[in-house]
Amino acid sequence: MLPAYIEDVQTWLADFHYFEDIKVRFCETDLFGHVNNTVPFIYFEQVRASFMEQSGLMEQEVEPGVIGMPVIASLHCDYVQQAYYNDKLSVGVKIARVGRSSIDMHYVALNGDEIIFTGTSIVVQMNKNTGKSIAFNNEQLESLAVTVK
Amino acid sequence: MLPAYIEDVQTWLADFHYFEDIKVRFCETDLFGHVNNTVPFIYFEQVRASFMEQSGLMEQEVEPGVIGMPVIASLHCDYVQQAYYNDKLSVGVKIARVGRSSIDMHYVALNGDEIIFTGTSIVVQMNKNTGKSIAFNNEQLESLAVTVK
Amino acid sequence: MLPAYIEDVQTWLADFHYFEDIKVRFCETDLFGHVNNTVPFIYFEQVRASFMEQSGLMEQEVEPGVIGMPVIASLHCDYVQQAYYNDKLSVGVKIARVGRSSIDMHYVALNGDEIIFTGTSIVVQMNKNTGKSIAFNNEQLESLAVTVK
Amino acid sequence: MLPAYIEDVQTWLADFHYFEDIKVRFCETDLFGHVNNTVPFIYFEQVRASFMEQSGLMEQEVEPGVIGMPVIASLHCDYVQQAYYNDKLSVGVKIARVGRSSIDMHYVALNGDEIIFTGTSIVVQMNKNTGKSIAFNNEQLESLAVTVK
Repeated sequence: MLPAYIEDVQTWLADFHYFEDIKVRFCETDLFGHVNNTVPFIYFEQVRASFMEQSGLMEQEVEPGVIGMPVIASLHCDYVQQAYYNDKLSVGVKIARVGRSSIDMHYVALNGDEIIFTGTSIVVQMNKNTGKSIAFNNEQLESLAVTVK
Repeated sequence: MLPAYIEDVQTWLADFHYFEDIKVRFCETDLFGHVNNTVPFIYFEQVRASFMEQSGLMEQEVEPGVIGMPVIASLHCDYVQQAYYNDKLSVGVKIARVGRSSIDMHYVALNGDEIIFTGTSIVVQMNKNTGKSIAFNNEQLESLAVTVK
Repeated sequence: MLPAYIEDVQTWLADFHYFEDIKVRFCETDLFGHVNNTVPFIYFEQVRASFMEQSGLMEQEVEPGVIGMPVIASLHCDYVQQAYYNDKLSVGVKIARVGRSSIDMHYVALNGDEIIFTGTSIVVQMNKNTGKSIAFNNEQLESLAVTVK
Repeated sequence: MLPAYIEDVQTWLADFHYFEDIKVRFCETDLFGHVNNTVPFIYFEQVRASFMEQSGLMEQEVEPGVIGMPVIASLHCDYVQQAYYNDKLSVGVKIARVGRSSIDMHYVALNGDEIIFTGTSIVVQMNKNTGKSIAFNNEQLESLAVTVK
């Protein structure tokens, strides 16, 4: 059974263009013998951080004198298959939706062709002075549009 | 703005009966100076594990010769306020819904009266031999009904 | 066989006055079924951080205009017995030696009367401007002398 | 100032033949802005685990009916320079000494030519039935001799 954010697996997978190889560490397993449930969020962070740097989604001046910074509003993981010590995973991230001041990101961890886990996050652009959300400017929206395609 | 799983905050909060005190560790912060986004899932696991033991939600014989084991199907966190090194959090967990073979759990982390983050998880009872879900038996449902109330 | 820094266990143990209770988390175990070897350093950090705050061993003005900050130069752990999920450990830290600009700290984790692991660290006071070590002043030495006794 | 286990840096470094590239993760930093002190032990474990598999230093029959398993007796880290988010480290491990039933391993983390941290560990071969140490057999010693050279 698929999570609600995946309509068609093949289409959904085809949109991922940013991946990093991550080998499961010994300390990332637990006494059940497989990867602990807290670990996918570490992998998501690793690919998200690289991806955001590369996509220009970092702290920046959004309007004259107004600094916008991306803040994680939520994180989500669906566990599909178990992962084990030494598994070589390919962990991908993509932008699934661009809103006025927020972005939905999706994640997938593959072991070969098999989906091990999937996930989502919402990243909001905050005005660093007020702590409130602030809309992306046109330059950001254009840059994000390129990243989404 | 509240996550969709919280209709009314006060009602939602009033249903939590299991809490553990957790002090934020130094190594749980990151270079932004606050608690890293991967950390709430560690806290959720801590309270979930204790709560499930106490609620009898552990690996057990569900039908003669059939062992059922609880498996995490999904984890979710909504970040409401920042947490910092040495914060004394009170982290709660409750059963929000009992299904045929799965349970929705909700989580909250409080710093005094303030909500720092909230979350959800779905736990499915799996047949250990087949790897498929298996319905809770009457004894389990009665026990869960008591826990929910 | 005892590590070289412990001459007599009973004497060594009797000098610990600062302890914190730490319950082993599920995610701190690994596929061997016991606590992963990287975890004692997390416990050492927890007690060291609290202990240093309480002992006034934080960043401070050491000479007029010169800020000294404590920096970890080394960490060490000796594994004596296995620890397991849900073990209730009592983790202690003490100052074992005060040097000109550095302090040796010792650690112990007890499960009841049993020693689970022991450890050491060297903390050096650094001049924040130069990055070189800087001697403790008399006030600091007096304060440390009290802490050691 | 060098740790006592390094007589001459260049000679010591020249003996490392097993390295893995490790990029510092965001969640491995702390509020001081650099890599948390507990993290080098995670890196040491990663290279040690791979190296031990490759060197045949795993659980095995040492005498007829007697299973020997490698157990970590101690871990040590000396912090030389700070590491930061996104640093690309090259982390090496080598066998520094082979004893009757134990091995000393040394570790180094390099950022380009710079040493960021160094470390040591003692691995003891335990008799799985008795929990006591058991001497390496000739085959193991020959295999280790090749690895050391």
